[in-house]
Amino acid sequence: MFESAEIGHAIDKDTFEAAVPALREALLEVQYELQQQKRFPVIILINGIEGAGKGETVKLLNEWMDPRLIEVRTFDQQTDEELARPPAWRYWRQLPAKGRMGIFFGNWYSQMLQSRVHDQIKDARLDQAIAGAERLEKMLCDEGALIFKFWFHLSKKQMKARLKALADDPLHSWRISPLDWQQSETYDKFVHFGERVLRRTSRDYAPWHVIEGVDPNYRGLTVGKILLEGLQNALKLPKGKASGMNPAPLIASVDQKSLLDSLDLSLRLDKDDYEEQLITEQARFSGLMRDKRMRKHALVSVFEGNDAAGKGGAIRRVAAALDPRQYHIVPIAAPSEDERAQPYLWRFWQKIPARGMFTVFDRSWYGRVLVERIEGFCTPTDWMRAYGEINDFEEQLRNAGVIVVKFWLAIDKDTQLERFQAREEIPFKRFKITEDDWRNRDKWDDYRAAVGDMVDRTSTEIAPWTLVEANDKRWARIKVLRTLNRALEDAFAKSDKHDKKKKK
Amino acid sequence: MFESAEIGHAIDKDTFEAAVPALREALLEVQYELQQQKRFPVIILINGIEGAGKGETVKLLNEWMDPRLIEVRTFDQQTDEELARPPAWRYWRQLPAKGRMGIFFGNWYSQMLQSRVHDQIKDARLDQAIAGAERLEKMLCDEGALIFKFWFHLSKKQMKARLKALADDPLHSWRISPLDWQQSETYDKFVHFGERVLRRTSRDYAPWHVIEGVDPNYRGLTVGKILLEGLQNALKLPKGKASGMNPAPLIASVDQKSLLDSLDLSLRLDKDDYEEQLITEQARFSGLMRDKRMRKHALVSVFEGNDAAGKGGAIRRVAAALDPRQYHIVPIAAPSEDERAQPYLWRFWQKIPARGMFTVFDRSWYGRVLVERIEGFCTPTDWMRAYGEINDFEEQLRNAGVIVVKFWLAIDKDTQLERFQAREEIPFKRFKITEDDWRNRDKWDDYRAAVGDMVDRTSTEIAPWTLVEANDKRWARIKVLRTLNRALEDAFAKSDKHDKKKKK
Repeated sequence: MFESAEIGHAIDKDTFEAAVPALREALLEVQYELQQQKRFPVIILINGIEGAGKGETVKLLNEWMDPRLIEVRTFDQQTDEELARPPAWRYWRQLPAKGRMGIFFGNWYSQMLQSRVHDQIKDARLDQAIAGAERLEKMLCDEGALIFKFWFHLSKKQMKARLKALADDPLHSWRISPLDWQQSETYDKFVHFGERVLRRTSRDYAPWHVIEGVDPNYRGLTVGKILLEGLQNALKLPKGKASGMNPAPLIASVDQKSLLDSLDLSLRLDKDDYEEQLITEQARFSGLMRDKRMRKHALVSVFEGNDAAGKGGAIRRVAAALDPRQYHIVPIAAPSEDERAQPYLWRFWQKIPARGMFTVFDRSWYGRVLVERIEGFCTPTDWMRAYGEINDFEEQLRNAGVIVVKFWLAIDKDTQLERFQAREEIPFKRFKITEDDWRNRDKWDDYRAAVGDMVDRTSTEIAPWTLVEANDKRWARIKVLRTLNRALEDAFAKSDKHDKKKKK
Repeated sequence: MFESAEIGHAIDKDTFEAAVPALREALLEVQYELQQQKRFPVIILINGIEGAGKGETVKLLNEWMDPRLIEVRTFDQQTDEELARPPAWRYWRQLPAKGRMGIFFGNWYSQMLQSRVHDQIKDARLDQAIAGAERLEKMLCDEGALIFKFWFHLSKKQMKARLKALADDPLHSWRISPLDWQQSETYDKFVHFGERVLRRTSRDYAPWHVIEGVDPNYRGLTVGKILLEGLQNALKLPKGKASGMNPAPLIASVDQKSLLDSLDLSLRLDKDDYEEQLITEQARFSGLMRDKRMRKHALVSVFEGNDAAGKGGAIRRVAAALDPRQYHIVPIAAPSEDERAQPYLWRFWQKIPARGMFTVFDRSWYGRVLVERIEGFCTPTDWMRAYGEINDFEEQLRNAGVIVVKFWLAIDKDTQLERFQAREEIPFKRFKITEDDWRNRDKWDDYRAAVGDMVDRTSTEIAPWTLVEANDKRWARIKVLRTLNRALEDAFAKSDKHDKKKKK
């Protein structure tokens, strides 16, 4: 894989200087075009051997192009805010917006390689990390991002010579690499595992480019040309760029029976039972959230449901059990301008709670496969791939100790009508009913089908959906609280088991 | 000041329960109206004696109102990202957007009071903190925010009884107060300094409300009613709410002479001198930015100037001296939707560099007193108060070790015309010239006057303006680099002096 990058590529000074002016102008041109179109972001990953010119090349790119449109991000030591959240959070918070370029040093690849070279993880964990990177990049590309991945290479001999030269130059000693490159073994391991990573993650949508790092002219010109051609290509594509894929459409089940039909919406609780159980479940919830095992977890809860199904009321009963300092409630409406300049999962990633905390999403990322699907705000390809992306997202949360609990509050059409009419009559509730609600009601069957697909495709062991019979608000609220309590207890029990095993 | 809050206010259960339903409905009504209008944010500060019901009251408010529109924020321990920036950064990043409510526990008042009670600061520093809080709140209110400040009070006897009751209740022991309230002296000091703080910071635009904290019914109902009336009032005000102030307009100087006229725009450097000095100044800059004293500082540089004055080129020469990982360049254009939902300084606060880092603002907060003034995007009252707000902002940066360097790049009208025409002819520069640029050119004299006022009012010892003669780009670039270098050297020299003093 690295053979072609050890053959002594070089460009002489005259050729280099003759080529640069035209390249620079062309790069500036595409950069401004990118900014004008604001159709997609550019993400440039910089990896490879120490001393192979990574930093110098990025510096050169900043000189050639307009640095005001480039964000250079390093991911060294994690901050304590980052350590309290899933590993990918730090990358999500630094993604460039559409029309801009982000250069990521010390990205997900450096982290997995360092861990493997240091023997902090084994091959199996490395492969998991590789698969995670693939899924992340695939998703970013599907959302329109243009990703360039550069691997700067040196042979071992070249590297040793280069490190010696750098050590003598006081200007280069201020940033210490976390790997001890002076050891011959480090190089061998890094190249060995690097090859594995590159092999697995070089994909049509985001291929690796291996650059021989010895000659500054060669590596600068090569990187510049790759960027230029990639950008020119992407900018020329028509606006509604069709993906090559043609997923088979989802069909309604042929017997017209859906999961939601199987719910017994007549379930109800009388007032006395409700009040007794409410106090019990709220106290239980309050206790669990104060349990010291909660410090290793965070809680995310998603509330979806028919309009007027009682999401707000259920959320209030959940919140009432807690100290308001422990939870955040995030109401989700149409995305803002800044949010539309990012992948659709971006705004949810920003709100992921730190350990010990609880975030309630009042509507959520499932809007992608509900309202966006039904209203045609995204293409069928977009929402079809969303099921997988959402499963990946929730798996990352779960792996970081975040407990994910998802509710669909279901009512029947008559109950909805009654509640709509009641809302229009009660002054302080009239804000809760809009034209949109009546329009959505006309699409009742579309939503029913979409909910069925959503549950089929995203109700997983790690983040199951709970369908809540919500014709009776009391029943619904108790079921919600009880489900949250069970989820916390299950997670704590698993942690205990895990801790015990470790002690043995 | 606290006399009325020690007389045993109480509301009996029947009265309370009779009053709550109507209050709740009214509160929900104003909350939804607030959300609909999206005209201003509501900030609620919660302070006072330990055990006086702060947490319980906030919990009650969350139950009464729609918690989805309320953000409860605590400011306990600073995170490392917060510690690396000016103290106010943590509040700015948590401000509620227009249409929403933010409840701030452990806000700026708790911090200053704790420091004073612990004797970490003296009265003079407390008074500085008080004045800072006043300026912050005044600015937020001028930007439209509605601020409520609640002080929950207890007499010493009441507090002791309450703490005893709480200690016996396991549900209340999980949050430890950083002050040792069991000591009688703590109470005395807290009340003593609290009185000083309340006296100074109770202003017409953001008065304190002292609430006796013994009786839950009394304190809940009182806080609820204050919120309700304040909100009803604010929501009724007409849209373009006129401030009571009528500042005298700024007049152009009567002899038509302006600061910019005093610049000698014929200053120039020939190519050889330029290239030699460029290398020298860039090397000097690079060295200073790597100096270990930089770890105690951050650098912020503002580039303003006539269109086509060469801001971009100057910024590129500055950036070229550095490792791209050490700086961020932030281009400022019209604010986005999310940015317009916040005070105008908000988007700049978000970008303030951590210690050791450098942020370049390509245009800046001075847009308020330049383009916004000239185009009428804000009222004269708005931009008139901006001078003071900006000075406050820069003083906060400076106090936290941030070095602020501001450039106005000046060219004459003929030079601008030449450059506009050249831009229209060169393909990769045609993006740099728009209709707006030609329109701005027609307002040349307005800008000249606005720049004069800006420099007169915001060129301060802590953050002086440097006017750069920019008809000759070479001259301008060298002057920019040299000014940055001097600013860094001055700041380092001051730190050295300060350190020496400390050692003595």
